[in-house]
Amino acid sequence: MNFDPTYRSQKFRSVGTRPRRPDGIDKVTGRARYGADFNMPGQLVGRILRSPHAHARIVRIDTARAEAVKGVKAIVTASDLPDLTNGNQSLFNILDNCMARSKVLYDGHAVAAVAAIDANAAKQALKLIEVEYEVLPHVVDVDAAMLPDAPLIDKTLFTGGVEPTPETPSNVALRSEFGHGDIESGFAQADIVVERSYRTEQTHQGYIEPHACVASCNSDGTAELWVCTQGHFVFRQTCADLLGLDVSKLRVTSSEIGGGFGGKTHVWVEPVALALSRKAGRPVKLVMSREEVFRASGPTSATSIDVKIGARKDGTITAAAANLRYTNGPYADIWAELGAMTSFACYDLENVKTVGFEVLVNRPKVAAYRAPSAPMAAFAVESTIDELAQELGMDPVEFRIQNAASEGTKSSYGPVYGPIGIGPTLEAAQSHPHVKAPLGPNQGRGMACGFWFNFGGQTCTDLNVNVDGTVTLAVGTVDVGGSRASLSLIAAEELGIAYEDVKAVVADTATLGYNDMTDGSRGTFSSSMATISAARNAIGVMRHRAALQWDIPVEDVTWEDGNAKASGEKYGNLSPLSIKEIAAASGNTGGPIAGHSEMVADGAGVSFATHICDVEVDPETGSTRIVRYTVIQDAGKAVHPAYVEGQYQGGAAQGIGWALNEEYIYGEDGRLQNPGFLDYRIPVCSDLPMIDTQILEIPNPNHPYGVRGVGETSIVPPLAAIANAISNAVGIRMTHIPMSPPRILAALNRERNQ
Amino acid sequence: MNFDPTYRSQKFRSVGTRPRRPDGIDKVTGRARYGADFNMPGQLVGRILRSPHAHARIVRIDTARAEAVKGVKAIVTASDLPDLTNGNQSLFNILDNCMARSKVLYDGHAVAAVAAIDANAAKQALKLIEVEYEVLPHVVDVDAAMLPDAPLIDKTLFTGGVEPTPETPSNVALRSEFGHGDIESGFAQADIVVERSYRTEQTHQGYIEPHACVASCNSDGTAELWVCTQGHFVFRQTCADLLGLDVSKLRVTSSEIGGGFGGKTHVWVEPVALALSRKAGRPVKLVMSREEVFRASGPTSATSIDVKIGARKDGTITAAAANLRYTNGPYADIWAELGAMTSFACYDLENVKTVGFEVLVNRPKVAAYRAPSAPMAAFAVESTIDELAQELGMDPVEFRIQNAASEGTKSSYGPVYGPIGIGPTLEAAQSHPHVKAPLGPNQGRGMACGFWFNFGGQTCTDLNVNVDGTVTLAVGTVDVGGSRASLSLIAAEELGIAYEDVKAVVADTATLGYNDMTDGSRGTFSSSMATISAARNAIGVMRHRAALQWDIPVEDVTWEDGNAKASGEKYGNLSPLSIKEIAAASGNTGGPIAGHSEMVADGAGVSFATHICDVEVDPETGSTRIVRYTVIQDAGKAVHPAYVEGQYQGGAAQGIGWALNEEYIYGEDGRLQNPGFLDYRIPVCSDLPMIDTQILEIPNPNHPYGVRGVGETSIVPPLAAIANAISNAVGIRMTHIPMSPPRILAALNRERNQ
Repeated sequence: MNFDPTYRSQKFRSVGTRPRRPDGIDKVTGRARYGADFNMPGQLVGRILRSPHAHARIVRIDTARAEAVKGVKAIVTASDLPDLTNGNQSLFNILDNCMARSKVLYDGHAVAAVAAIDANAAKQALKLIEVEYEVLPHVVDVDAAMLPDAPLIDKTLFTGGVEPTPETPSNVALRSEFGHGDIESGFAQADIVVERSYRTEQTHQGYIEPHACVASCNSDGTAELWVCTQGHFVFRQTCADLLGLDVSKLRVTSSEIGGGFGGKTHVWVEPVALALSRKAGRPVKLVMSREEVFRASGPTSATSIDVKIGARKDGTITAAAANLRYTNGPYADIWAELGAMTSFACYDLENVKTVGFEVLVNRPKVAAYRAPSAPMAAFAVESTIDELAQELGMDPVEFRIQNAASEGTKSSYGPVYGPIGIGPTLEAAQSHPHVKAPLGPNQGRGMACGFWFNFGGQTCTDLNVNVDGTVTLAVGTVDVGGSRASLSLIAAEELGIAYEDVKAVVADTATLGYNDMTDGSRGTFSSSMATISAARNAIGVMRHRAALQWDIPVEDVTWEDGNAKASGEKYGNLSPLSIKEIAAASGNTGGPIAGHSEMVADGAGVSFATHICDVEVDPETGSTRIVRYTVIQDAGKAVHPAYVEGQYQGGAAQGIGWALNEEYIYGEDGRLQNPGFLDYRIPVCSDLPMIDTQILEIPNPNHPYGVRGVGETSIVPPLAAIANAISNAVGIRMTHIPMSPPRILAALNRERNQ
Repeated sequence: MNFDPTYRSQKFRSVGTRPRRPDGIDKVTGRARYGADFNMPGQLVGRILRSPHAHARIVRIDTARAEAVKGVKAIVTASDLPDLTNGNQSLFNILDNCMARSKVLYDGHAVAAVAAIDANAAKQALKLIEVEYEVLPHVVDVDAAMLPDAPLIDKTLFTGGVEPTPETPSNVALRSEFGHGDIESGFAQADIVVERSYRTEQTHQGYIEPHACVASCNSDGTAELWVCTQGHFVFRQTCADLLGLDVSKLRVTSSEIGGGFGGKTHVWVEPVALALSRKAGRPVKLVMSREEVFRASGPTSATSIDVKIGARKDGTITAAAANLRYTNGPYADIWAELGAMTSFACYDLENVKTVGFEVLVNRPKVAAYRAPSAPMAAFAVESTIDELAQELGMDPVEFRIQNAASEGTKSSYGPVYGPIGIGPTLEAAQSHPHVKAPLGPNQGRGMACGFWFNFGGQTCTDLNVNVDGTVTLAVGTVDVGGSRASLSLIAAEELGIAYEDVKAVVADTATLGYNDMTDGSRGTFSSSMATISAARNAIGVMRHRAALQWDIPVEDVTWEDGNAKASGEKYGNLSPLSIKEIAAASGNTGGPIAGHSEMVADGAGVSFATHICDVEVDPETGSTRIVRYTVIQDAGKAVHPAYVEGQYQGGAAQGIGWALNEEYIYGEDGRLQNPGFLDYRIPVCSDLPMIDTQILEIPNPNHPYGVRGVGETSIVPPLAAIANAISNAVGIRMTHIPMSPPRILAALNRERNQ
């Protein structure tokens, strides 16, 4: 689409205001329908049997006794989800993760599923399915998994990307490398070099709503899926591929979503629900328990990271390197690669090199979690930068400003930046009252920066002008954070009508063209591009209709503030025609009025943030309290500032939980010991201060209004910002996340005993 | 849209075949979701309290005791549906019909409604609502209602359309007149004049599925409605108007429909369900009982019709006149007007005049019933024609052929015909084996013709090409007779792909532009026009994408049989790109591929049919058996011949029931005495022979494939065809429909006693 640069200098009328979100009342009154809030006549209850072993060969599954349970209508195992992946390894991994084939690869791996007329029958049947396992040695730790004698997850796997291919298999699935310059000569130029190793533990996105769906397979090869997802079009494709359906024959409707944060970009139970329905001939509802969510859906990677940074005394970084090892669960993916790409993206470096290793372990398949892989890399890098600034005797903000990337910088992962916000966020931090506020006893202050790419991708919208001049906007990106409000503002802005006159809905897969998922902070960015395009198409139609009503050439009709105007003195007596007037006449001027857009929304615009954090550490217990927290981030243009702030706050809150308490704890037996919110501690309101936000707006030149993605970057800095604050408070450098009370207390005690 | 006339001479590949309908298996396996098959969390049960009086003033309604019933969450009366109709009389009539205001106007008129947590609580509350009525004199008979001393339905009503306006009010709401020439001089030229009076009784569409909906009003002014309807966009508009909602804020989803036949073009309980939900703050499901369907939803008019036709001995009709009086229920509409327009539409007449009177009575509000108003007019006219042919000693088919309208005829209701099918259907009848088959004792043969306008109207479709090259087609006309199959054939034809590669769905109101209802036989006609247009737009996109893939000008790319082809010798080495290949590459060539269309589908193309019927009349009981039945009708182009035949058969079956048995029977008290299928007898399988069909195809020049509407015309001839056959069998001319055994026996006895 062609962008009119004047839009960026224009005054906005709707964009930038803070109206109430259209889904708000539904959500607070309980009327909103989530994944489990849909039912179909004759529907069965689905339940999944999961492995109690971290690693085992499946010798035999006998479902005969379970099938005899009254009310049981179908039992499926891997044989009911035959391999149709045709050599597509990542699709096969998804299939194998949904239902284990020859081996179970982690505690909680699905081995069978039941559909029955009620939950009791289903549970009884689960108990009667006999599975004979041959238990194998397991490994869950990232560094242990890389040792030469580690139990092998996949004996056919040799380290990818390494030349020559090693002669022995290993748990390292892929190696990736980024950077430029010559780090050896860079380190040689350095006056000071800091080199440290870090670890982070595996966390879960912690969305409140567990995965839930209702699936219905028909005997004619058509199927329906109601599902809580971040991307119903992608789910349609994956499920169609796994079940052997035409894409057009599977209709997927996305429910409201009670949090996703990347974890709902991935199918877990949906293909199983479809397979159960196909076998039972009836609809099947499948809802995960919280325990299942923890044991068998998308946590993030546990990591082990080495960082080495050298600088001259004047504060110039001369070289930076990182070696990143990320657990992937039992299937190869690109999590370390994303860590390697983001590690040094905030900085303008002459010599930089990052290497990532994807490490297989007997843990659940990793899924995206908000700016996936970046927070751990940022923790390692920003902690090291902080220590380096300290050793240089420089203010940490000033040190970062001196080395910050800017327009024209060749990034550490390759591309050259356009106009970006890292410098401005740092400068805003420097002049923020927070950095000058006094600190109390046992309190410390830290800061850190963060980066995320932001994605664009395929997007469609349909915009229909109703006969009363109100507008329905059908979009295909699931609304995870208020995008229906933002996109309504965008449509209102472009058409020149009131926000209240636009009603945005998330259309199902049968009624709109393909949309990529709501991930990579692409929802509002990409759908707003398509909405602007569709609105401009609708304006074109309305100009044409006004011309017909007036009987003048369409070229003489302009569109201003929601009205068609006849331009030129000869039309002096023609009053403008409002959208309502044009819509009311539409039945007589050619029929319904609409605008459509199908596009690839390129140029999402990278995002940067700087966070400032004050903590208080209790020296007796090692517990850490967040005293004050400030997020400064570039939004490009904040379409709905309140929801941008909400994203900033939400990311920070999740980062705080990750930094201080959240972690997967595995027993010696490789089984998860804390699969529930009692033992896996996410922050609650009373754990957090009000998180202050400051929105910067450095327009994204690729978007007509300058919008950038905003949803993810804010989770990147907190781990490091809090670690730096703790270091500042109690003088110890924490290198292991989460910085939970026992871990801090142990560190304090080590210090005291030295 | 521009039509390529070559399409009409081309060989079709998909159109004209008979694949299985996509909704077929769902329907026969019970998986299809009808009006009552939807539920929302927290939903309440709605029930309506109805008047036991045919005509009464509502003195007082006291809901206090009912409100105290445990589980009752809301009770609404007219005050909860305030008049927002702003002087729009027909909208006010709909409102008043949904919930009586000052007066109840018929037995079954709604006076209050309850929403409760279960049906028992709702029923108990209904019993406790106290309504004090002042009973008024009533009138249900059409001729009685026109008498000067008839009880008045509306004392403020003076005969519309009559100049000067009468000084006294009456039950005649409107008068309409059609015709041309001079009937007086026409009758003067006649050698023979036949003048007869006829009566028909009120019938119901008899759809198997009662009206049902789930309504949910939110406190922020948005609402949802799941409903069994023939037109969810129209329901949206009406309900939004009555409830005071923006059109865009009400999302209406149409369920599968278990028959409509015109009766589901009208709101009955839906605004009440919305009002209950608004008051209760919870979703409300409202399902009519069969008794409610009969007492308070859309029957057809009872009529009283005089016909006078004159002809010369050579068989030329010189003049034709009809005076038509149609009950409207208590609200003025245009039912007699439609009768007046259709009466003589089959014939080429020099002098013709029809006058219609809309008569108010204390019966339920009339709704459309398949070719509304035409069957009664055809019964009167075609019976008279038959008698005239007899008197002239002419074969009835030959007599009609001699007077049939043809291309260029100025129709009796105004327009000049294009190419039409009345002549061809008569000629087909003349040469059909049926007319020469021998008849047994007490058997007789009759034939009659029928006409219906067919509508066009506003239509939108969205056609999305999926990444695997299959297509999803979103249409907005509710599928009442297989249109998803027909429209899939149309899309497949246009794109050059397989029928199985297209999946058509009926989109809800939030995801597609406005569509007029599925009425007037417009569904397949109009949506196929829009589908062809959308498909051509998508082909335009695909040619462009292929050009990009090949890096050649788009002008050099043609579309043939589902493939893009590079035209010209210089591209000799370029293999065609299939839709699947172009779709697979779409993510890299500009994003998703789609075509859209919003249009007014003008030029529906009038429709004609000739029916032949053999009956056997039992002289002992007066009962009539249909021995053989043949429908010959012009389809323009039969997109899916099996479903065209199904429409022909269905219309004939309904007409047979109407002719022989169906009627509303009112007691002296003005209450309906037979509100159920036990006492209101529709034909069942064993009542009917296999109905033979013959499809003629006289292309509609306004449609690219020549399609005409086919759904309604087949109900027009049966009343007359059967009356003519009975006359032929037993020598008595039945002038009162239904020709039920008691009525025939009485006529036979009258003959015997003469």
